[in-house]
Amino acid sequence: MEEVSYKEKYMKLALDLARQTLGQTSPNPSVGAVIVKEGRLIGAGVHVKAGEAHAEVNALKQAGSDAKGADMFVTLEPCSHYGKTPPCSKAIIEHGIKKVYIATLDPNPNVSGRGVQWLKQEGVEVETGICEQEAQKLNEPFFHFMKTGKPFVTLKTAVSMDGKMATHTGDSKWITSETARLDVHELRHRHDAILVGIDTIIQDNPRLTTRLPHGGISPIRIVLDTHLRIPLHANVIQDLSTETIVICSKEADAEKELTLQARGVAVIRLNTDRIDISELLTVLAKQNILSLFVEGGAKIHTSFIESGYVNQIIMYMAPKLVGGSDARPFFSGKGAEKIVESLPFEFVEVKSLGQDLKIVARPIRKEAT
Amino acid sequence: MEEVSYKEKYMKLALDLARQTLGQTSPNPSVGAVIVKEGRLIGAGVHVKAGEAHAEVNALKQAGSDAKGADMFVTLEPCSHYGKTPPCSKAIIEHGIKKVYIATLDPNPNVSGRGVQWLKQEGVEVETGICEQEAQKLNEPFFHFMKTGKPFVTLKTAVSMDGKMATHTGDSKWITSETARLDVHELRHRHDAILVGIDTIIQDNPRLTTRLPHGGISPIRIVLDTHLRIPLHANVIQDLSTETIVICSKEADAEKELTLQARGVAVIRLNTDRIDISELLTVLAKQNILSLFVEGGAKIHTSFIESGYVNQIIMYMAPKLVGGSDARPFFSGKGAEKIVESLPFEFVEVKSLGQDLKIVARPIRKEAT
Amino acid sequence: MEEVSYKEKYMKLALDLARQTLGQTSPNPSVGAVIVKEGRLIGAGVHVKAGEAHAEVNALKQAGSDAKGADMFVTLEPCSHYGKTPPCSKAIIEHGIKKVYIATLDPNPNVSGRGVQWLKQEGVEVETGICEQEAQKLNEPFFHFMKTGKPFVTLKTAVSMDGKMATHTGDSKWITSETARLDVHELRHRHDAILVGIDTIIQDNPRLTTRLPHGGISPIRIVLDTHLRIPLHANVIQDLSTETIVICSKEADAEKELTLQARGVAVIRLNTDRIDISELLTVLAKQNILSLFVEGGAKIHTSFIESGYVNQIIMYMAPKLVGGSDARPFFSGKGAEKIVESLPFEFVEVKSLGQDLKIVARPIRKEAT
Amino acid sequence: MEEVSYKEKYMKLALDLARQTLGQTSPNPSVGAVIVKEGRLIGAGVHVKAGEAHAEVNALKQAGSDAKGADMFVTLEPCSHYGKTPPCSKAIIEHGIKKVYIATLDPNPNVSGRGVQWLKQEGVEVETGICEQEAQKLNEPFFHFMKTGKPFVTLKTAVSMDGKMATHTGDSKWITSETARLDVHELRHRHDAILVGIDTIIQDNPRLTTRLPHGGISPIRIVLDTHLRIPLHANVIQDLSTETIVICSKEADAEKELTLQARGVAVIRLNTDRIDISELLTVLAKQNILSLFVEGGAKIHTSFIESGYVNQIIMYMAPKLVGGSDARPFFSGKGAEKIVESLPFEFVEVKSLGQDLKIVARPIRKEAT
Ligand SMILES: [Zn+2]
Ligand SMILES: [Zn+2]
Ligand SMILES: [Zn+2]
Ligand SMILES: [Zn+2]
Repeated sequence: MEEVSYKEKYMKLALDLARQTLGQTSPNPSVGAVIVKEGRLIGAGVHVKAGEAHAEVNALKQAGSDAKGADMFVTLEPCSHYGKTPPCSKAIIEHGIKKVYIATLDPNPNVSGRGVQWLKQEGVEVETGICEQEAQKLNEPFFHFMKTGKPFVTLKTAVSMDGKMATHTGDSKWITSETARLDVHELRHRHDAILVGIDTIIQDNPRLTTRLPHGGISPIRIVLDTHLRIPLHANVIQDLSTETIVICSKEADAEKELTLQARGVAVIRLNTDRIDISELLTVLAKQNILSLFVEGGAKIHTSFIESGYVNQIIMYMAPKLVGGSDARPFFSGKGAEKIVESLPFEFVEVKSLGQDLKIVARPIRKEAT
Repeated sequence: MEEVSYKEKYMKLALDLARQTLGQTSPNPSVGAVIVKEGRLIGAGVHVKAGEAHAEVNALKQAGSDAKGADMFVTLEPCSHYGKTPPCSKAIIEHGIKKVYIATLDPNPNVSGRGVQWLKQEGVEVETGICEQEAQKLNEPFFHFMKTGKPFVTLKTAVSMDGKMATHTGDSKWITSETARLDVHELRHRHDAILVGIDTIIQDNPRLTTRLPHGGISPIRIVLDTHLRIPLHANVIQDLSTETIVICSKEADAEKELTLQARGVAVIRLNTDRIDISELLTVLAKQNILSLFVEGGAKIHTSFIESGYVNQIIMYMAPKLVGGSDARPFFSGKGAEKIVESLPFEFVEVKSLGQDLKIVARPIRKEAT
Repeated sequence: MEEVSYKEKYMKLALDLARQTLGQTSPNPSVGAVIVKEGRLIGAGVHVKAGEAHAEVNALKQAGSDAKGADMFVTLEPCSHYGKTPPCSKAIIEHGIKKVYIATLDPNPNVSGRGVQWLKQEGVEVETGICEQEAQKLNEPFFHFMKTGKPFVTLKTAVSMDGKMATHTGDSKWITSETARLDVHELRHRHDAILVGIDTIIQDNPRLTTRLPHGGISPIRIVLDTHLRIPLHANVIQDLSTETIVICSKEADAEKELTLQARGVAVIRLNTDRIDISELLTVLAKQNILSLFVEGGAKIHTSFIESGYVNQIIMYMAPKLVGGSDARPFFSGKGAEKIVESLPFEFVEVKSLGQDLKIVARPIRKEAT
Repeated sequence: MEEVSYKEKYMKLALDLARQTLGQTSPNPSVGAVIVKEGRLIGAGVHVKAGEAHAEVNALKQAGSDAKGADMFVTLEPCSHYGKTPPCSKAIIEHGIKKVYIATLDPNPNVSGRGVQWLKQEGVEVETGICEQEAQKLNEPFFHFMKTGKPFVTLKTAVSMDGKMATHTGDSKWITSETARLDVHELRHRHDAILVGIDTIIQDNPRLTTRLPHGGISPIRIVLDTHLRIPLHANVIQDLSTETIVICSKEADAEKELTLQARGVAVIRLNTDRIDISELLTVLAKQNILSLFVEGGAKIHTSFIESGYVNQIIMYMAPKLVGGSDARPFFSGKGAEKIVESLPFEFVEVKSLGQDLKIVARPIRKEAT
């Protein structure tokens, strides 16, 4: 029993370190590592940015020669390949670490288990599975991406109690309170990319950046624009603080494409007349987008939901009644004939956020694969 | 401090007793009483039905002559008038109770304070305000009715995550799970009357009775039917297990009215062309209806909400997406032009109920008066 | 699942009613009963004193003829014998109760199951075991007495952090705070008898009555006095507010016995030279003492503990250091040679009581039988 | 409100890092630091050992040139003097940190506030007091030492329910369970020094080392031995895994002192006939002992308690009755005449530890100063 508490105590510190870097390490996962010797913490490290040192290396740097004979706790299997940095497994072996406690194996099928194998081969003891679920949940999009080859898709909407996203005149400022909107910016910060439809660009002209009181990372902006209707004065084109990618169909105007590219906007032309969600996600995956935050509008939400590729819906609900029969709900489509044919979800989280509710639902039986 | 615990301990027992009779004592409130002497409980009573003995009297009956010199704890000020039963204040005095602890005064302005005055005049010590808020909350509709002269109005709706009450074909069986539906039957049991519009009768032909596994009280059924279109084969007419009242406008067909009355259905004709909610509530108040449970449909909900007379909305939300742009939300009306003009509420309760959510909201700034 | 909640909801009300009468019904157990029909509570009753009506009868009295076809919830099996009152089973049958939910069977081996059998024979449905553990715990001394034929023994002590009951001069006023002492009076109220040794009477001359702010029942006072040394001016003799029994050995002075009896004090002469705890408990059992509260002093505690007949120890510990090597701990005896030979207990409750701790321990492996 | 959550979120991470180094940094306090820029964690550091890099420097090392314009969160005021390492304040200024959030000022009156002053002078924004109480509690002995010039004294004892530390034959193995004993080893790990009396050495011959399943730091062993009676074969002399200091009076045998010193044991001779606790603590303070863990025996405990220099008592209580009037309690002395004259404490923590209780008490009104 004490054994458990020893392992969990330090793994939880490593997980706490990793958790603070959510959203800033993509396409790498968030990883933390600590080194302990005879009851003393002698090193703590975290990976802060793709291209920079891995968590294990940072922890080893602090421990120095004391690392010989020590235990390491790391939230993900140490890497075994030469990338932008040399493999962590090699550094662990060279520093003489005696035992490595690993929360979870690398989900990448090409490398999973190789780090462990290398370590064991060189005489390092290895124990895996400490706080495993927590570690996988922490980097959920990374694990999903590695298993499916597609980004983890979160659909976000803000509605009134009567299910309206805006008044019948189109006014939507602001359904939800500042607290809820701040939560949205925190989620933007954590996602690799944010996606909206061209109608949203034309109607609302949003900037789609992360605006948190103490800064944050703006995700790549993806605009679904079948016919390249996007106006050049759109904020997502004028504002250069982050990248914008416009997705169009194979028949979109070639000249407009050149104009956009001249403005520094990437244009990706799909091979089809209409934008197919499955193909789109494959294309985004190639851009190293592991997590996608879909902000609407209603048509986009409907396409995504009907495609079966939504991993979760986050609905902010305000205690307001908007009324008006024309105002749209966040999801429409042709609709089920019978209630029993409606799309089944489960609520996984409900909490108060200022005066609003944050409701998180995940599809059941129809998980994208 | 021990003093507090003595008073609260026994008042809470009295409140627990009262709580178990919610829904069964109307138009009387739920009341419990206990009698304690030298640390011994010597009597416990509860009022179970209008017309039967009051809680105080039941407790005194058990205590008998031991009541002399004892303390009584009662959740509402003892009555001081001769009604169907003699006044409890008189019985308390006659039994020689030494001190009466009262949770809250009677809200009825005509009698409030009179019980206390009588008791004090006859030398009985009185202390009020023990667990006062809890006691007023327990009989909230009763307190509301006494203050405003109108029933306490609860509007109930069941919707999908995208705010639909039914599919575009009108199918609504069942949006929510059995657990949520059972909760609705529990609420029917607790209300004096249930109200629906004529469209609901025509489309769904509901029975509107309370169907709980171990029985329950069916509320009076109120149908808003401006032109007396109700079909004679409607379940609310055929089923005689509880009373049905049909409300029509002044111009409704007189012959149909007679036909309905012949079937045992009460018909109340308002003085106006259209049904006015304020007038309606005054009429229902005259029928001793203290609490009204409005079950829809959308038009009825909209009228009630726009009237400003809704005290709370209970929304059961199922983790389903129904879709279909024609399917109605539970509230429509002409709608706000701007979000800032929408009707403001506050969420007062959110909880999981089986797979569904139960969300309770109350209006702010526009409380019916 | 709803079924469970129906049964538990009303059984818990019956248990709540019973709980308020702890200490006042001996030698009867505390019992509560409620009657429910079609979702309505129609009767609630509690047994308040030996010789008066049982809980079931009180509940039936309130329900009257409505009881026909109703459900009854009762915390103990209804009685089946003619005692001071006619058997409750008969009353239940005569009132036409449809189903009886019983928390636990009567532990008295002579009657256990007979009530259920009679009810079933007469066509009343019976279900037992609802909240059974809670119901048995509520009347733990009663269940213990019925099983073992001996009172349930609780030993109480108040000590400083260094385990002292008094200073070396014998001063013990007050080790613990008023809050803890109030808890002791609550426990006196709940016990049939309180026991001390003659040394305590001579040194402290306590009254041994229950003194709660709102009254309480004083237990019978038992004084262990082998040689009848008790002084006639002792408070337990002068104070007539409750009975006193003096226990002496077979050789105690006969004249002193007569003097005491003349003062209204009962004297019980055991058949042995020294007072044997097992025999003592058998004698007390014959006096209908189901629960015994042993308040000391140290010698008495030691005898009881060494006899193996203690069911629980309640230790109030004050955050004080008294010091002084002569001051006694609450338990002495010859003592274990080795730690592994010491008497094994388990802590079953620890809580803060004002500035003090209340620690409850029960013996393991050596339960009195 | 969001501001608060930003500051607290990162300060809590810094505190979590610091917490893991409790017991290993003495005479330095445990300190953690994190660096954040535009919502990204860019550095995390912790001080792991006296003489090695401070937390701030470790965090700055990881952040590198990115630190320019970033926020730092550090659990203690950055140092401003050249010690074994250059001052952290200098490094913070040189790296261009924009704002430093500090949990608490340095309690050392000679340097308190100087770090903040230097930072501000050089244009670094400073905010202090974030999670201040938690930060001071974390390094309580350090703060106590800086304020009073004496070590923080924790007295530990293990007793049975009847307050015995051993049977009358002296057997004490084991009063408490393994879980409680493990907790003691964890506390040894966290203390700078452990102290026992010579009687304990002679009777039990303990090793007084930290034996945790995964290692730990053994504190310096202090033996109070007025007359230098310590046998040379004592474990604390034979075992060289940590330092031993023997404290004697001015008249102790000089030859024995030399013999001990030859064995590598330090001997400190006080200027008095008897060992005075106040003088002792001043002497230990000079040895950089900030926290002292007093393990007994009874005489030592009594001396410490009567001196008024005990900061807390940790009592492990086992659910056992040992009995035997000769067995000692952990505290004796001459003892109070009256209960009201006993030494007043307050319970600050009570928890279950395996089958035992851990009870922590602190003196009131007589805090060592
Ligand atoms: Zn790596
Ligand atoms: Zn009344
Ligand atoms: Zn009976
Ligand atoms: Zn420093």
